[in-house]
Amino acid sequence: MYNVDFKTDRSIDLIGIGRLCIDLNADQFNRPMEETSSFTKYVGGSPANIAIGSARLGLKSGFIGKVSDDQMGRFIVQYLKANHIDTSGISVDQTGAVTGLAFTEIKSPEECSILMYRDNVADLKLDTSNVSEEYIKNSKALLISGTALAASPSREAVFLALDYARKHDVVVIFDLDYRPYTWTSAQETAVYYNLAAEKCDVIIGTREEFDMMEQFESNDNDDHRTAQKWFSYHAEIVVIKHGSEGSIAYTKDGSSHRGGTFKTKVLKTFGAGDSYASAFIYGLMNQWEIPKAMEYGSASAAIVISKHSCSDAMPTTDEIDRLIAEQKVKK
Amino acid sequence: MYNVDFKTDRSIDLIGIGRLCIDLNADQFNRPMEETSSFTKYVGGSPANIAIGSARLGLKSGFIGKVSDDQMGRFIVQYLKANHIDTSGISVDQTGAVTGLAFTEIKSPEECSILMYRDNVADLKLDTSNVSEEYIKNSKALLISGTALAASPSREAVFLALDYARKHDVVVIFDLDYRPYTWTSAQETAVYYNLAAEKCDVIIGTREEFDMMEQFESNDNDDHRTAQKWFSYHAEIVVIKHGSEGSIAYTKDGSSHRGGTFKTKVLKTFGAGDSYASAFIYGLMNQWEIPKAMEYGSASAAIVISKHSCSDAMPTTDEIDRLIAEQKVKK
Amino acid sequence: MYNVDFKTDRSIDLIGIGRLCIDLNADQFNRPMEETSSFTKYVGGSPANIAIGSARLGLKSGFIGKVSDDQMGRFIVQYLKANHIDTSGISVDQTGAVTGLAFTEIKSPEECSILMYRDNVADLKLDTSNVSEEYIKNSKALLISGTALAASPSREAVFLALDYARKHDVVVIFDLDYRPYTWTSAQETAVYYNLAAEKCDVIIGTREEFDMMEQFESNDNDDHRTAQKWFSYHAEIVVIKHGSEGSIAYTKDGSSHRGGTFKTKVLKTFGAGDSYASAFIYGLMNQWEIPKAMEYGSASAAIVISKHSCSDAMPTTDEIDRLIAEQKVKK
Amino acid sequence: MYNVDFKTDRSIDLIGIGRLCIDLNADQFNRPMEETSSFTKYVGGSPANIAIGSARLGLKSGFIGKVSDDQMGRFIVQYLKANHIDTSGISVDQTGAVTGLAFTEIKSPEECSILMYRDNVADLKLDTSNVSEEYIKNSKALLISGTALAASPSREAVFLALDYARKHDVVVIFDLDYRPYTWTSAQETAVYYNLAAEKCDVIIGTREEFDMMEQFESNDNDDHRTAQKWFSYHAEIVVIKHGSEGSIAYTKDGSSHRGGTFKTKVLKTFGAGDSYASAFIYGLMNQWEIPKAMEYGSASAAIVISKHSCSDAMPTTDEIDRLIAEQKVKK
Repeated sequence: MYNVDFKTDRSIDLIGIGRLCIDLNADQFNRPMEETSSFTKYVGGSPANIAIGSARLGLKSGFIGKVSDDQMGRFIVQYLKANHIDTSGISVDQTGAVTGLAFTEIKSPEECSILMYRDNVADLKLDTSNVSEEYIKNSKALLISGTALAASPSREAVFLALDYARKHDVVVIFDLDYRPYTWTSAQETAVYYNLAAEKCDVIIGTREEFDMMEQFESNDNDDHRTAQKWFSYHAEIVVIKHGSEGSIAYTKDGSSHRGGTFKTKVLKTFGAGDSYASAFIYGLMNQWEIPKAMEYGSASAAIVISKHSCSDAMPTTDEIDRLIAEQKVKK
Repeated sequence: MYNVDFKTDRSIDLIGIGRLCIDLNADQFNRPMEETSSFTKYVGGSPANIAIGSARLGLKSGFIGKVSDDQMGRFIVQYLKANHIDTSGISVDQTGAVTGLAFTEIKSPEECSILMYRDNVADLKLDTSNVSEEYIKNSKALLISGTALAASPSREAVFLALDYARKHDVVVIFDLDYRPYTWTSAQETAVYYNLAAEKCDVIIGTREEFDMMEQFESNDNDDHRTAQKWFSYHAEIVVIKHGSEGSIAYTKDGSSHRGGTFKTKVLKTFGAGDSYASAFIYGLMNQWEIPKAMEYGSASAAIVISKHSCSDAMPTTDEIDRLIAEQKVKK
Repeated sequence: MYNVDFKTDRSIDLIGIGRLCIDLNADQFNRPMEETSSFTKYVGGSPANIAIGSARLGLKSGFIGKVSDDQMGRFIVQYLKANHIDTSGISVDQTGAVTGLAFTEIKSPEECSILMYRDNVADLKLDTSNVSEEYIKNSKALLISGTALAASPSREAVFLALDYARKHDVVVIFDLDYRPYTWTSAQETAVYYNLAAEKCDVIIGTREEFDMMEQFESNDNDDHRTAQKWFSYHAEIVVIKHGSEGSIAYTKDGSSHRGGTFKTKVLKTFGAGDSYASAFIYGLMNQWEIPKAMEYGSASAAIVISKHSCSDAMPTTDEIDRLIAEQKVKK
Repeated sequence: MYNVDFKTDRSIDLIGIGRLCIDLNADQFNRPMEETSSFTKYVGGSPANIAIGSARLGLKSGFIGKVSDDQMGRFIVQYLKANHIDTSGISVDQTGAVTGLAFTEIKSPEECSILMYRDNVADLKLDTSNVSEEYIKNSKALLISGTALAASPSREAVFLALDYARKHDVVVIFDLDYRPYTWTSAQETAVYYNLAAEKCDVIIGTREEFDMMEQFESNDNDDHRTAQKWFSYHAEIVVIKHGSEGSIAYTKDGSSHRGGTFKTKVLKTFGAGDSYASAFIYGLMNQWEIPKAMEYGSASAAIVISKHSCSDAMPTTDEIDRLIAEQKVKK
C-alpha cells in the first residue's frame, strides 16, 4: 500500500490553478455545428472542472486564476461560489482580455470536436503578483494543468506556485491536459512540461502526452521508463492513460496497478479526463489504495461522458457509488 | 426630386463588403448575461445584415468578405446562400483566424449591450487579392461599413474596392457604423473614415459618428455644414441620424428632409441602423422620393427592434407595407 | 512656362515630414561590410536629407517628426538646428522606440547596399497630436516621403498633415522614396501611396515606383498616362526618373521636359534622389523654368554621389553653380 | 581545496551558448555620444566575450548560437573562427532577424552607458533544433548567460542544452549577466533564472543579480544563505561579486574565499565581468585553488577595463601573469 503524504494541518484540500473558461455546448447533438442553432453555457477548463468535481465529492476546493472583467468572468466566479469553491484566489483582468470559449460539436459519440477561442484570454494573464504564498501554504494539494504553462505571464505564475508548494510540503498534482492549439510548438511544450513535472508528486496523463514530453529522448513509449524518469525527480505516483484500454498507475515503491473502464451510454467524450482526475484525487486524499482510487476515477468518467456538460455533470459520491455497485470493472 | 444614378446594365444590385460575424443572442431577456443560460446563433455584422435585409426586400445582393475555415464560417456562407445572396465574392481564411462573435445582453429594452470577440477575426483578413474588379463592375452599388477599415489588410481591400467602384460608376454607400472597440484610437478612425467618405456617393451615420469624423475641425455639430463638406467631394446624399428624434437627409441639390420613427414594442435596440439602411437603399434603388425611402427605412427598423435577431428578423416588403399602412409616421 | 503657386505670406519655405534616422557609413570603401572596421555617423532619412539640402541652398526649412529619447535622437535634433532648420515641430518619443539605422556598404560605386534597422523606430511613432495645423499653415510647401506612410500612427499623422496642407493652400510635394523592407506588402504600399498622391501637387519618383503604384491597373509603364492620372486629381507637376537615362517632368499644361545627368566621379549611389529633390524644389520655389530646376537637381545629385555622406554632403548654390559652369548636361 | 569534476574525455573545453552581438564603441572618449562622430565594430555579448577570453587563454572553445543572415552575422562568425573558436554550433537565422547592437558611450571612466538595439535580434531566435546533444556531450563545460533566457525560442533552447549537459556530466556554469532592458519584468526574469540556476554547477553574479533572483523570498542580501540555497540544488561553487569591494566565492564543502581587485588605469567599466569569468573558468579547468582562480579573474578584468573593446581586449596568459607579477592584490 502506498500513500501520498498530505499534510493535515491545512484548511483547503485542493487548489486548482490555471484555466477558467466557458464551454458552449450545442443543444442539438449528432450533427455538424453548422446545423446546430443554440448553445448552453457552462464553466469549463480542465483545472476548473477538476476543482468542481472535487468539490462535488466533498473536498474543500479553492482556485488561483484570472477571469475577464465582463459577464463571462462574473458568471464563472458565481458558478464556482455556488459550488462551494473558495474564489478568494481569483483575480479580475484589467487589460481587456476575454474569457476563453470552447464550442463543442457532437457529430456522434465517437466524433466530437471543439472550436476554441483562445486569443487574448484572461486565464493566461495570471501573473506572479496574483499568487499568494499564504494561500498555497494553507492547502494540502495544488493541481496544475498544462495550458497554464502555454504563455507568459501565466507560465511564470505557475512556476512560482510550484516553488511555494514545494517549500511548504503541498502535494503537487499535474494533470498534463496537452492542448496543441494553445502552444507555439511541440518543442516549446515539452521543455516547460518537463520543467514543471520535475517538481510534481503526482503526474497524470495519456501515453501520447508523455510521448510529447519525451521527444528529446529515445524512450519507445515505455510506461515503466516514463514512470522511473519522474521518480528520479520528485514524483511518487505516475498515471498513464491508454484510452479505452484503461490506465496504469506506477508508485515510487515499485508497484504498478492497472485500471479498467465502466460501461456507459456515451453522449460525448469531453470531460472524461477531468472527471477521472477529480475522483482519483479524492481517493488519494482519503488514503485509499491506488486501485480503489482508480476505480473511482473510472466510474466518475463513465458518468460524465453520458451527460451534456463537463463541469455541471460532475457526480456526487452517491452517484459514483451507485454505478460501482451496479457494475464490475472491466479489467 | 433627387435621384441617384444607378447604372442599369448590372447583374447585381448591391454588394456588401466587410464584416461577417456571428451574433449569439441570449435566449433569456430582461436580465444580466450572468443569469442567462443559452444563446441562439445568427449571422451578424452590419454589412451582412444590410445585404440580408436588401435581399429580403427583393434586391439581388452579393458580398465580398472573408470567413473562418471552420463551422462558424461555413454556417455564415450557408445562411447567406439560403437567403439568395451571391457568395462568390466570399473567401475562406487560411491563417487560423476565427469568426467574430457578438454576445448580446438585453437587460431591458433601453439597456442592451454587446460582448464582442474581435481578436484575430477572419473578416479583417480580407485582402486586395480577394477583391475582384470584374465583380464590382457588374454591380449597381457597393456598400461599405466602417469596421472593415479598422485594420490591415481589410482596410486596403476596401480602399481598392472603392477605387474600382468609382472607376466603373458603381454608387458607393457608406454606413458609418463606428464601433470603438475595433479601433486603436478615435484619431486613427477619423483619418480613415474621412479618406473613405471622400469617395462615397451616399453617407449614412449618426450625429455622433459625424462628430468623430470632424474632430480635427471645428464644426459644432452642424448637420448642414457636415453635409456640405461631403458634397464638396463626391457625396450626393448625406443622412444624419438623431436617435429617437428621427433623422435628416441632405441632397446635393440643396434640399433636406426630416424623417420620423414608427411606434413599436421594442425588445432590443440592436439592428435598428442596419434595417433602416437596407430599406432606405431599397427605396433609393427604386428611384423613390427621399422621404418615402426614409419612411421605409424607419418602418423596417421598427420591425427589427421588436424581434430577437437582427439578420433573421429583416422584414419583407409585405411586412413593411403593413406597418406603414397601420401607422402614421411621428414627425 | 509653368509655375507652381507658392503662397508668399508664409514664414517657412518648406516643411519636411517623416523619417529622421542615422546613417552609419563604413569608413572603408570598396569592400564588403564584413571587412570594414568603423562607421561614421550622419543624419539620414529621405525627407531629412531633403530638408537639409534645401536649407543648405538657402531655403527656410522646418520639420515635423519624432525622434528617440536617447543620444541618437538628440544628435539628430542638434544637427538639424546647426543647419538652420526649425525643429519646433519635432517631438520626442516616450515609448522606448529607437532611431532607425542604415549601415552602408560600398563594395564598388555600382554595388552599394544598405543594412537597415527599422524595428520599433521612433519616426513611425509620429501621431496626429504631433501635427500642428498652425505650423503647416505658415509654410509654402510640405514635403512628404513614402516611408512615413508605412505604419500607424505615422501614416495617420501624414494624412492629417495633407488635409491641413490642402485646406491652407500649402503646396504638397511627394518624394515617393519606396523602401520595400519597411512595408508588409507591395499591395498595401500601393493603396496608401495612391491615397496620398491624390492630394499632392508635385510628385517625384522613379518609373519603378510609379509601376508599383499602378499594380492594380494596366498601364504598361507609360510615363504620359502616369502623369495624366495624377493631373486628374490635384497634381501640377509629375517627375519620373529613369536612372542614368535621366528624367522627364510633365506639367499639367501639357508640356514635358527631359533632364539629363552630370558627369561625376561616383563614390556611391546613395543620396542621389534626395539631393536631386532638394535642388529641384529650390528651383520651383524660385519660379525657375522646369528645365532649369531639373538641371539644378541633377547637378546637386552629381555632387552628393561623389562624397561619403548624403546629408552632410548636400551642396551650396556655389558648388552647384560651379559644376554647371564646368559641364554641359548630357542629354 | 575544492575541485570541480571536469570530465577529461571531451574534445572541447568550454561551449558558450546564447548572445552573439556587435559592440559599436565610440572612437571618441570622455564625452556624450551626441558629440562622438564614429564607432569601431567589435564582436560582443557576454557569452561570446567569455568564449573569446577563454580561447585567448588557451582553452578549446565552441559556441551554440544564431546569427543574422547579413554582413553583421558573417562578421561575427569570421571573428570567432579567427580566434580559434569552433563555430559548428552556430546557425544562421532565416526569418529576417538582425544582429543585436550595443553602442557604448564613455562620458568618463565612472560614467559609461550602453544604447542597445535588441528588437528582433537573431540571438534570441536560437531554437531547440539548433542544439545538438552530441556537441554538448563532447564538452567539459557549458556556459550559459541570462539574456538567452529572455525570450522564446532561445529560452527553450537553453533549457534543452541544460538537460543534455546534466545528462552527460557536462559542468554547467551560469554567468548571470542580467540586462533588464531585455526582459518584460523582474518577476519573469527571476522565475527563469531560478529554474536555470537549479541545474547549474557554478553560478557567478553580482549581489544585485542574486537579489533579483530572491525577490519572492526574504533573504536580506545574505551571501551565505544565497550560496546555501544553490548548494541544495546542484551548485558546487557560487561567486558573488560586490563591485569595487571585490568578490566572495563559496564552495559546497563549506569554505568561502574573498577576492580583491587590481589597480589599473580605467578607460571604461564594460567587459569587467566577462573577462573575470573567462579567467576564473580557466583557473577552475586547470584545477587551481579557488583563490588563485579568483586572482586570475581579477587581473584579467583589470586589463580589459583599461582598453577600448571587450572582446578584442581579452588578455593572454602572458599579459595576466605580467600584471599579477607587478602587483599585489588589494585585499
